[in-house]
Amino acid sequence: MKRTDNRKPDELRPIKITNHYLKHAEGSVLIEMGDTKVICTASVEEKTAQHLKGTGKGWVTAEYGMLPRSTASRKVRDASRGKIDGRTMEIQRLIGRSLRSVTDLELLGERSIWIDCDVIQADGGTRTASITGAFIAMVEAMKWMKEREMIETIPVKSFVSAISVGILADESGEEAVLDLPYTEDSTAKVDMNVVMTDRGEYIEVQGTGEDAPFGPEQLQQMLALAAKGCRELNEIQKEILGKLE
Amino acid sequence: MKRTDNRKPDELRPIKITNHYLKHAEGSVLIEMGDTKVICTASVEEKTAQHLKGTGKGWVTAEYGMLPRSTASRKVRDASRGKIDGRTMEIQRLIGRSLRSVTDLELLGERSIWIDCDVIQADGGTRTASITGAFIAMVEAMKWMKEREMIETIPVKSFVSAISVGILADESGEEAVLDLPYTEDSTAKVDMNVVMTDRGEYIEVQGTGEDAPFGPEQLQQMLALAAKGCRELNEIQKEILGKLE
Amino acid sequence: MKRTDNRKPDELRPIKITNHYLKHAEGSVLIEMGDTKVICTASVEEKTAQHLKGTGKGWVTAEYGMLPRSTASRKVRDASRGKIDGRTMEIQRLIGRSLRSVTDLELLGERSIWIDCDVIQADGGTRTASITGAFIAMVEAMKWMKEREMIETIPVKSFVSAISVGILADESGEEAVLDLPYTEDSTAKVDMNVVMTDRGEYIEVQGTGEDAPFGPEQLQQMLALAAKGCRELNEIQKEILGKLE
Amino acid sequence: MKRTDNRKPDELRPIKITNHYLKHAEGSVLIEMGDTKVICTASVEEKTAQHLKGTGKGWVTAEYGMLPRSTASRKVRDASRGKIDGRTMEIQRLIGRSLRSVTDLELLGERSIWIDCDVIQADGGTRTASITGAFIAMVEAMKWMKEREMIETIPVKSFVSAISVGILADESGEEAVLDLPYTEDSTAKVDMNVVMTDRGEYIEVQGTGEDAPFGPEQLQQMLALAAKGCRELNEIQKEILGKLE
Amino acid sequence: MKRTDNRKPDELRPIKITNHYLKHAEGSVLIEMGDTKVICTASVEEKTAQHLKGTGKGWVTAEYGMLPRSTASRKVRDASRGKIDGRTMEIQRLIGRSLRSVTDLELLGERSIWIDCDVIQADGGTRTASITGAFIAMVEAMKWMKEREMIETIPVKSFVSAISVGILADESGEEAVLDLPYTEDSTAKVDMNVVMTDRGEYIEVQGTGEDAPFGPEQLQQMLALAAKGCRELNEIQKEILGKLE
Amino acid sequence: MKRTDNRKPDELRPIKITNHYLKHAEGSVLIEMGDTKVICTASVEEKTAQHLKGTGKGWVTAEYGMLPRSTASRKVRDASRGKIDGRTMEIQRLIGRSLRSVTDLELLGERSIWIDCDVIQADGGTRTASITGAFIAMVEAMKWMKEREMIETIPVKSFVSAISVGILADESGEEAVLDLPYTEDSTAKVDMNVVMTDRGEYIEVQGTGEDAPFGPEQLQQMLALAAKGCRELNEIQKEILGKLE
Repeated sequence: MKRTDNRKPDELRPIKITNHYLKHAEGSVLIEMGDTKVICTASVEEKTAQHLKGTGKGWVTAEYGMLPRSTASRKVRDASRGKIDGRTMEIQRLIGRSLRSVTDLELLGERSIWIDCDVIQADGGTRTASITGAFIAMVEAMKWMKEREMIETIPVKSFVSAISVGILADESGEEAVLDLPYTEDSTAKVDMNVVMTDRGEYIEVQGTGEDAPFGPEQLQQMLALAAKGCRELNEIQKEILGKLE
Repeated sequence: MKRTDNRKPDELRPIKITNHYLKHAEGSVLIEMGDTKVICTASVEEKTAQHLKGTGKGWVTAEYGMLPRSTASRKVRDASRGKIDGRTMEIQRLIGRSLRSVTDLELLGERSIWIDCDVIQADGGTRTASITGAFIAMVEAMKWMKEREMIETIPVKSFVSAISVGILADESGEEAVLDLPYTEDSTAKVDMNVVMTDRGEYIEVQGTGEDAPFGPEQLQQMLALAAKGCRELNEIQKEILGKLE
Repeated sequence: MKRTDNRKPDELRPIKITNHYLKHAEGSVLIEMGDTKVICTASVEEKTAQHLKGTGKGWVTAEYGMLPRSTASRKVRDASRGKIDGRTMEIQRLIGRSLRSVTDLELLGERSIWIDCDVIQADGGTRTASITGAFIAMVEAMKWMKEREMIETIPVKSFVSAISVGILADESGEEAVLDLPYTEDSTAKVDMNVVMTDRGEYIEVQGTGEDAPFGPEQLQQMLALAAKGCRELNEIQKEILGKLE
Repeated sequence: MKRTDNRKPDELRPIKITNHYLKHAEGSVLIEMGDTKVICTASVEEKTAQHLKGTGKGWVTAEYGMLPRSTASRKVRDASRGKIDGRTMEIQRLIGRSLRSVTDLELLGERSIWIDCDVIQADGGTRTASITGAFIAMVEAMKWMKEREMIETIPVKSFVSAISVGILADESGEEAVLDLPYTEDSTAKVDMNVVMTDRGEYIEVQGTGEDAPFGPEQLQQMLALAAKGCRELNEIQKEILGKLE
Repeated sequence: MKRTDNRKPDELRPIKITNHYLKHAEGSVLIEMGDTKVICTASVEEKTAQHLKGTGKGWVTAEYGMLPRSTASRKVRDASRGKIDGRTMEIQRLIGRSLRSVTDLELLGERSIWIDCDVIQADGGTRTASITGAFIAMVEAMKWMKEREMIETIPVKSFVSAISVGILADESGEEAVLDLPYTEDSTAKVDMNVVMTDRGEYIEVQGTGEDAPFGPEQLQQMLALAAKGCRELNEIQKEILGKLE
Repeated sequence: MKRTDNRKPDELRPIKITNHYLKHAEGSVLIEMGDTKVICTASVEEKTAQHLKGTGKGWVTAEYGMLPRSTASRKVRDASRGKIDGRTMEIQRLIGRSLRSVTDLELLGERSIWIDCDVIQADGGTRTASITGAFIAMVEAMKWMKEREMIETIPVKSFVSAISVGILADESGEEAVLDLPYTEDSTAKVDMNVVMTDRGEYIEVQGTGEDAPFGPEQLQQMLALAAKGCRELNEIQKEILGKLE
């Protein structure tokens, strides 16, 4: 089965990460995976979440948005509709959970890190690119805090990256593939997003067979591809960030 | 590791399903799994979703709610807050996707089935109980349509059920368990919901290790438990609904 | 004039009240009047209303909702519309006022009792059934407080119940009737709801002749029927709750 | 018992009605009852309510508002809060119902009359003054329609007016009084609003004993006062409008 | 070029200002400029704006509204739409800025003055009439504060008034005119609002050539007309208010 | 008076415009003026505005947003607050009016052009940079339409650009300056935005002296600087777009 951009089934799209992309944020990254482009920023606030006041613990929270014309046809602005749609909510909850799962909230202290992921151009995999990029922005914000002696060590337990996998089907059969662009994503039989640590553990596994259910073997194939993709992304993150301590 | 209600790790809670629970809805079920109680109704509307007009296809959509005092402490009503929270949105999208994945939308014709799942009493696993119960309510609504010759056959490809699994941890180690009540769910290291067909295929796999990542072996243990649980729920559904044709 | 269910003009529908219906709430009741079924819960909160802080007085507040398919055709969820409709607001204000009128807010202390009335199945008279049932749930919550020595005595001055009355009209003339089911209610010339204490006093009298005005004599007939109905409901409440002290 | 403005228990406050108060509206009235001042307008729209399309029937609908500084302390604007409060909803529903009850919606044809009642200065009885004034504005709008031959006759079955009554209590006892200004209204034991036709029939009876229940005799005294007040208001309306035909 | 009401190009419409128009507000004015009628009130609150707490400074804020039938065709209420439209926001921000620009916020102390401008009848120039009238209401509220010894002096640096100017065009050419009523305003090529002090300084200059751009010479003609109009309005304000000290 | 970045009073910041910045939009530009960076896109929709249906005319409408961390401290997302703030509304109305004023809406036909201006990094002058950049994106979208023979000619009457001017004050006196970065803008005595055509005509003049009023001479100085700035921006636009025909 030929992929739209001639990649092999287990091959990532070309990746480009521009660190320190914006001047105001404590951490900011432009991540490009193929034609998908997302600005990820991390902002430090000297106040923890409401429900953690007095516990000594901090919080990491995430918001996600798409510019109206990041997509092929113009998407109505959430602000104009007066509310956030369900897909956006799911994605921002996913990003927040993923980053919190590797953060030592006690070492962070009673502070918040706000993650903002804004999609400038969308071509599939925006939520997973957001997680991969936001992790870098978050660590940069932590380095900024460490320089100012707000914290003594980078309060992160593992690296986190995320990737999409799926099952493509045509007359010749079905095949599991890694890192789907929009044209593949929109026709895939199964769509799955996986978030992993650099120790090969799972943080999130979300697979959906809306068009058709999928069998146990296909699940295993997708999990294997995802592990390979996340490993490669972790390598790139490590080159940019160096050792965390 | 001892479970709070002495169940075995792979044992479901006691299940009670009351079919035809309400008089107005075309399909209505009260499903009780342990102390979790959900009213599921299915309503037939002679109009398909906006984006399907003129395609000959129908739609299945779901809404989910919790009575304010279904929970241990009172939950503010969504209607009073003026918006639906992120968790509710995720759940209603999940229920809708799960039911659509086994429905033949062309055979349904340009009609909608509205699923409402309202939690009367919550004790863990409300979203999976909703799916298992809503499937029955949906099929009852389809039978109602067939009796009125609106459709010729029940447009359903497989049975659908759902269950939660998770990893409990204590000083003695970690163990995968099936069908977690609230006390287990709130302390579980990993929380996973699985939706399956009666052919053993996956419709949704959603695993989250917010408190701690989980390894590949734990993932496999949980998948095995979920398959067992869904199979048993399918049996109960088949007893109630009989053959679909 | 024959009633749809063959009752006499001054006869209530069959009543069934299930006390302690749910496990989490401090007070909870399922009240059924004919086919009308309402879950009423009372929740204790250790905080009085904003405007009473520092006065030593407590508050009783009520919310009312209908499950989407409690009605003959599906009703859009308030939460989905993003706001509470006018009818719902009127009803929840009525329930709150009615219960506060017999509560000694000073004896309650700086606490709130939240009343939730959720209609599971609607067949006329949901607001009056809500008041009758909510009174029981509220007193149960007060007993719960007394057991925990939060209060010394049940801070209630009288029993409260409520019923609907109306004027039915056909070719043979007009007649005042008690406790209208939906089919009568929707065609009645006049619709009136009366809330009374067990001393025969009025708490609320709300009569509406939208389709046609009504004369002074008809008003008196309806008031007499309402007094009879409320008296009977008070008897049932007393059987369930016993003496309040 | 002495009233704050030395009126007799059954005496209305001084009334002033300025017809044709504004230049744009088809009907417009400034009604002053003591210090309560309300602008009532009636606007004709060539479209009936959604649910009446194709039935040949028209509709009358009402909205009510208070200027922020119509009250003793500034009231937050509904528009700033983003929603209409419960009291406002109740009042605008009451005004609409009252006017519809005397309008022949078939003779009106598939048109709407929009009533707007805006309180410029509040001193008790704003909802009843709104009804009394809005009736005049509505009839003026109907005359405007008749002049343009949109209708052949004024489609009104009776005159409508409204007044408040209540029970005042002091050490000397309790007394029923007519037309309460704010200082009386805010301390009254019982508050009741009555809407009546010029034939002495009731359209609405709404009595509330939030602070204390009231007995059957007190109800009858209030009803008698209300009938006297409405009769006097009808006389004033007839002087302004002349015969309706 | 003949104006619709035969005024000269540099002539204001007839002006009538009723001071102390309402009984509750600390300052209240009815300002009429031709057929445009606006009620302006000023309310004193013993709390400054959130962002000024602890600075010793006060705040002046403004809200603006139109009665639904102040306009030729009925305008939907902001409260019913659930949000304030863009035009209203612009106007209330303009009124607030204009009044703050001449107020000594330190002398005012940590208090707020709330300005409410409500248009009873609209015929062009409602925002400028609002500013001219609101200034008087604000100073009256300050006098009220001074009488109560809350402040020692009226904390106002200059008088403020505002007027509209524009460019009318017909076959005979183009002409700059002062104080446009609705019929002129809606066909004017250019629409400009100018807010000035009694020292001939500018507070706001807002000119818009949506239908057609305008040249530098036309801009100068409009500025000259505006200066004349504001001067005349300042005279009227001074007659009403006397010297500020 | 020395400027923060050593520019002369009448000197623009360095400008960089990247045309065809995004792949999906019909027109897209990244405009950078100093550290201010705005993405402007133009999207073509085959439907005119509601109020222009059947008139043969098209419409141009604009929306404006800021990424949460485009600013020095994180700004809450409009979508999270559920409404658009007043400043944003003013800006998007200004952008829309400015572009419509030079567009021949009849030649455009019954279509809409949606302009989206999203600020990636803010350092003063975001609204004027938006207008200057959006004009280019709009013309690119029109070229795209012309290539597809949807229109015969580029329906634009003049070039449009915009710039900010202001009055800076220090102990040495006051001086009018062009193109203020944030540090100047936030301390300027007067803030003014001017939108002009390439014929030297005004489209919008918006000057605000909130902190202090400004004299006629200062107004003239600012107008002269603005004219110079807009002229230079028009030159850059012409280099990018070439002749419009």
